[in-house]
Amino acid sequence: MKYPNSNKVYVKPKESASNRGMSLEDDINRTNRYYLNHGIAVIHKKPTPITIVHVDYPKRSAAKITEAYFKVPSTTDYNGIYLGRYIDFEAKECESKTSFPFSSIHSHQIKHLSDVMKQGAIAFIILRMVSHNKDFLIRANDFIEFYETADRRSLPYSWIEENGFVITGRYPKPCDYLAIAKEVFDLQENYDE
Amino acid sequence: MKYPNSNKVYVKPKESASNRGMSLEDDINRTNRYYLNHGIAVIHKKPTPITIVHVDYPKRSAAKITEAYFKVPSTTDYNGIYLGRYIDFEAKECESKTSFPFSSIHSHQIKHLSDVMKQGAIAFIILRMVSHNKDFLIRANDFIEFYETADRRSLPYSWIEENGFVITGRYPKPCDYLAIAKEVFDLQENYDE
Repeated sequence: MKYPNSNKVYVKPKESASNRGMSLEDDINRTNRYYLNHGIAVIHKKPTPITIVHVDYPKRSAAKITEAYFKVPSTTDYNGIYLGRYIDFEAKECESKTSFPFSSIHSHQIKHLSDVMKQGAIAFIILRMVSHNKDFLIRANDFIEFYETADRRSLPYSWIEENGFVITGRYPKPCDYLAIAKEVFDLQENYDE
Repeated sequence: MKYPNSNKVYVKPKESASNRGMSLEDDINRTNRYYLNHGIAVIHKKPTPITIVHVDYPKRSAAKITEAYFKVPSTTDYNGIYLGRYIDFEAKECESKTSFPFSSIHSHQIKHLSDVMKQGAIAFIILRMVSHNKDFLIRANDFIEFYETADRRSLPYSWIEENGFVITGRYPKPCDYLAIAKEVFDLQENYDE
């Protein structure tokens, strides 16, 4: 069988996080669309919270926001439902090779994870360690325990490797976090109503 | 027993929706804060979805969005967790005395309610009938059944009265929708993990 440009050297794509798609957000949104379209789960990213100060209403065209500011989010970016369970998570990309700094995550968001856990949520953080080409699922309770007791202000990579669960994925589910979440949290296919 | 200012005439506040607070959104947000602060439930309004076109980054001050547009929402405005269950709803105020027009709710939002119901969500609409001074909880399945089969493009008030459940509330829970949702959906205090 012939391919166009078959004299070109074929380079096998690396199975690395950086090749899965674009940003972690893009990969999660694409995966969420797959989950939605296949009736697997309904999970959406929340819109970016902003404070609107001024809106113009031109005749015969759409309202235009001309002054607005970003707000500190009071919740995580993602939530939804999977196998009858409330799912809640924050997603972060980390450029550092050695650790994930706590300054990358708002204290409101950590309180939110703790609040939803008390109500019975499946809560976690998706952490893309860019230099290691790896995506991890970290249970919110593990994260919060370390966050509250450690005498340092970051998660060391050794801790992430030990406590995190590697998320695999390839097109059309470039970040298939529910596959691993189902195992980690022992979620059942037939939940009780 | 003496009260301060006991010579003042005591006027009993009317138990009407218009006296409960400001807009329905304000009343729900206030109620949600009460639920959150008392560990009852974690339910938040999602930020308004917008498309950001241009942002200025002035020196020594906050980033300023100078051009953005409103997007059609792809989900409902509110979701969260209560008694271990995923809760999802849309809230609407209706000025008409006779009916609630379907044009007030986006078809995306109706599809979203249907999607989350299939995953086991507690899904409903909160409808404030302003002229009647009443707030109703309408189950999403009842609403969708009428929406899909009726030969009219609005919910008649008679249908709302027959199928809706009146939401009561007073400060600090001006729209105590979870009290009635608990009964309507037979939610249990001790859910199974």
